[in-house]
Amino acid sequence: MKIRTDLALECREMFAGEISGVESTSHDSDGITVTHVNIKTPEGEARIGKPIGSYITIEIDNMLCQDDEIEERGENAVGNELKKLIKDKNTDSVLIVGLGNQYITPDSIGPKTVGKVTVTRHITSEAKLGFDFDIRPVSAVAPGVLGITGIETGEIVKGVVEHVKPTLVIAVDALAARKISRLGTTVQISDTGISPGSGVGNNRKELTEKTLGVPVIAIGVPMVVDATTLAMDIIGEHKQIKNELIENGRGMILTPNDVDAISNTASDIISGGINMALHS
Amino acid sequence: MKIRTDLALECREMFAGEISGVESTSHDSDGITVTHVNIKTPEGEARIGKPIGSYITIEIDNMLCQDDEIEERGENAVGNELKKLIKDKNTDSVLIVGLGNQYITPDSIGPKTVGKVTVTRHITSEAKLGFDFDIRPVSAVAPGVLGITGIETGEIVKGVVEHVKPTLVIAVDALAARKISRLGTTVQISDTGISPGSGVGNNRKELTEKTLGVPVIAIGVPMVVDATTLAMDIIGEHKQIKNELIENGRGMILTPNDVDAISNTASDIISGGINMALHS
Amino acid sequence: MKIRTDLALECREMFAGEISGVESTSHDSDGITVTHVNIKTPEGEARIGKPIGSYITIEIDNMLCQDDEIEERGENAVGNELKKLIKDKNTDSVLIVGLGNQYITPDSIGPKTVGKVTVTRHITSEAKLGFDFDIRPVSAVAPGVLGITGIETGEIVKGVVEHVKPTLVIAVDALAARKISRLGTTVQISDTGISPGSGVGNNRKELTEKTLGVPVIAIGVPMVVDATTLAMDIIGEHKQIKNELIENGRGMILTPNDVDAISNTASDIISGGINMALHS
Amino acid sequence: MKIRTDLALECREMFAGEISGVESTSHDSDGITVTHVNIKTPEGEARIGKPIGSYITIEIDNMLCQDDEIEERGENAVGNELKKLIKDKNTDSVLIVGLGNQYITPDSIGPKTVGKVTVTRHITSEAKLGFDFDIRPVSAVAPGVLGITGIETGEIVKGVVEHVKPTLVIAVDALAARKISRLGTTVQISDTGISPGSGVGNNRKELTEKTLGVPVIAIGVPMVVDATTLAMDIIGEHKQIKNELIENGRGMILTPNDVDAISNTASDIISGGINMALHS
Repeated sequence: MKIRTDLALECREMFAGEISGVESTSHDSDGITVTHVNIKTPEGEARIGKPIGSYITIEIDNMLCQDDEIEERGENAVGNELKKLIKDKNTDSVLIVGLGNQYITPDSIGPKTVGKVTVTRHITSEAKLGFDFDIRPVSAVAPGVLGITGIETGEIVKGVVEHVKPTLVIAVDALAARKISRLGTTVQISDTGISPGSGVGNNRKELTEKTLGVPVIAIGVPMVVDATTLAMDIIGEHKQIKNELIENGRGMILTPNDVDAISNTASDIISGGINMALHS
Repeated sequence: MKIRTDLALECREMFAGEISGVESTSHDSDGITVTHVNIKTPEGEARIGKPIGSYITIEIDNMLCQDDEIEERGENAVGNELKKLIKDKNTDSVLIVGLGNQYITPDSIGPKTVGKVTVTRHITSEAKLGFDFDIRPVSAVAPGVLGITGIETGEIVKGVVEHVKPTLVIAVDALAARKISRLGTTVQISDTGISPGSGVGNNRKELTEKTLGVPVIAIGVPMVVDATTLAMDIIGEHKQIKNELIENGRGMILTPNDVDAISNTASDIISGGINMALHS
Repeated sequence: MKIRTDLALECREMFAGEISGVESTSHDSDGITVTHVNIKTPEGEARIGKPIGSYITIEIDNMLCQDDEIEERGENAVGNELKKLIKDKNTDSVLIVGLGNQYITPDSIGPKTVGKVTVTRHITSEAKLGFDFDIRPVSAVAPGVLGITGIETGEIVKGVVEHVKPTLVIAVDALAARKISRLGTTVQISDTGISPGSGVGNNRKELTEKTLGVPVIAIGVPMVVDATTLAMDIIGEHKQIKNELIENGRGMILTPNDVDAISNTASDIISGGINMALHS
Repeated sequence: MKIRTDLALECREMFAGEISGVESTSHDSDGITVTHVNIKTPEGEARIGKPIGSYITIEIDNMLCQDDEIEERGENAVGNELKKLIKDKNTDSVLIVGLGNQYITPDSIGPKTVGKVTVTRHITSEAKLGFDFDIRPVSAVAPGVLGITGIETGEIVKGVVEHVKPTLVIAVDALAARKISRLGTTVQISDTGISPGSGVGNNRKELTEKTLGVPVIAIGVPMVVDATTLAMDIIGEHKQIKNELIENGRGMILTPNDVDAISNTASDIISGGINMALHS
């Protein structure tokens, strides 16, 4: 058992001082803190435990408040960071992949985002003449989860990618964090795709340029702290609750009690950011 | 504009007397009427307007009552007819495809069925040793609809089929009927797959052995009568309502007011029938 | 059997020329048509078949499009008309009552509106000091329907009214119309409360000043045309479809196929209008 | 801050040895453990921290598995214990009250149960002649929560009780526990009604014979452990995680990740048990 977090920022925080091969910068404005953690060398990768690449963490003050104005600021921040991250990539055709289980609320951000992004791949060339700007083909799928489909998510996505032939994939996912204060308040964007074992369901397979043949951007919001990660963080000799968390905590999560509303806000912010980055 | 129905039985009913190339038999028992319409020749195909093949219609008395016992009888009838229809086919690996839009209740039977069938393709050979009967690999996907994914359903299904490599596909769909009395009370099973233009959404693409490379069984329940089909059925000179149905009826459907409950029952019966036919 | 409509406007339209005791005026602006039908005398009441009072119909062009800007215009129109209707009433404490069955989509506007209006009755006097305007106590209940509670809605509402002691009740409801083109595109506001038999479920009891002891404003959106109303509107000799509608049409409704999305829009517009009229 | 649990059993477990004024017995059969904790004196009440009365805890092995057979055993156990608890009470007319917020999954058991119990109060005497057994009037309401209605739940329930005039109230609620292993696996039934502060939402008001004028049975299933209760259970010197739980844990809960499915099972078992106790 070990500490589990999908946030590169939290991996970085486990170390004091400089880490060779890892750069980290942060800036604040208007209630939003954006931190860039860039893992640049295999040495950095080994220390942090995440693949080489860029990890952008957007922390949004009061995101839990369900306020329209905060939601809009969050969308803008996500849209801007995403735009910068993809500006050197081929975005001629983009496929959004919404990972996770729509029937398990803390894991439903991906499928909810699919229902909210603006898709355009099916608009005919004729219909496009009616618009005075370029419409980039965007498509979106929610592949479901292994327990419901009986199929590895990676297989379904690979099958769709081979037919849709996107030049870029954006995978959206609910994440696990270590710190409670990050639940529902933080968006992570990275250019490294999805690593095995990340996500709320904890059995995600790899979705990366290596497996899909095109670059994969990952966007996620931490929605849970694993009960076993909580247990790991309890240090000391008297360990009654630690043992209970270890023995009975499998499948148990720490999550906000209004996770239903929070997963709606999170998918609003992600889909709004994606729409902004791709359609304007 | 023309009369629209996905039920071969209703196409057959439009003709009195024998039709060359079309056989039709019917039997009743225990509150359930099973009718077989077999279209055997191109001539029959042309008259009926449905592809050559077998169409089984199961009419279940009082299916609208949401009674457990009626639901069980429905499941058994669907399971038995499905078993007979697939008994000469290769069922080494079966993929269930749930067509339709989960967010539009009358069109949600397909995705709901996917959430209810028992999938087994991901069970490891090791785990299978624990069972004392053979577990056939069954998988299931809900590909979504064009308006939400931007991708033709047929492309997604083809991509999945190429990776999962099933020997048989079962496509589940909500149907349009002509007669109000059939809404939510009838299950149609056929070995011809899905024809273009069928289903509630009315823009389904072909899903057949020709397009997917493996046999395709289709199972559906009529959930709506199109407003324009209603209009077509109004004959006579004074046609105020007919004209209104034609002018304003686009996208309007006639449906039971408790279609939410009925789509639950329908997906229970279909998934129960599929589980029975494939896992026992 | 007879034509069924909850819209006073449609009752008025059944007559050509003047009706003694009934005034009707209409104005258009910005894609919105507002019609006032005032029933002023018992004679007018008898002709129109609706109680004496004011009926305001707001027809919103393209309301079915789910466009943010149209939704906002709808909210403003509803808010303004509601404000005028209640300006001479005591609005010291307002109770919103969301009628209908949340599990039957076309009947769910009332309960959905309850989830969306801003309630303030529970804000303590201390907390109110933080606001620089007056906060009027607003509360909201969704009493459920007879088939689920076993209790007449009127009894539940009366019990709540006796404890909450509002000075005004606003009852929100899904309506039945005669014309297909009005489904999901029209809001009716009246100062007469809810009459027996109106609403989608068709077994609403009276909720009026007479039964509750305080004035009752009713707000509704037509979501269905009854199958039997359709049948009544079919005139002529050949009446195959008419007979089928009469025989099998009980509980069948004509409704937009995306009634799920439309009931969301409708409850957004009504709750937005109520919030505007009561909290600004 | 203190340990929070709604289970009398867990309060009892905090003490070793006998407690004066508290009796406790337990029996096991068929995968189900039933424990009776009877608080008999003010002294026992003070020690345990729950009102004088009977508390029955039904622990159901493997209730998390969503197995039909286990669900049935759970229903029978709940039905039998409930029958015994109410056999000396006047059950001429029973009102089920489903507490909690239907939009927050771990708090939704009450409203879900209301949708599943068989209500009969509205069946006319005439219709009852068709049954060959006595039909007791049963009704059910889901009063909503303060944040959505602006009205104290107790006021709504009191208003309904005064009109419906039941002889017995059964209040159904989601509970907070201390031990993770009890989440979704345990049903508590008591004859003491609802105490202030219990339930997932943690701001329930009193619903007891004292406030409602008729006996109140409470039935609940623990769905969450409060983050602050977790923190309290962490003893020792190094307290990093303890402090984070205390600082950021407000509104955070530990809950099973498939709480959606578990709240369905829990409301099935409770409603099945209630139906069995009242209608057979």
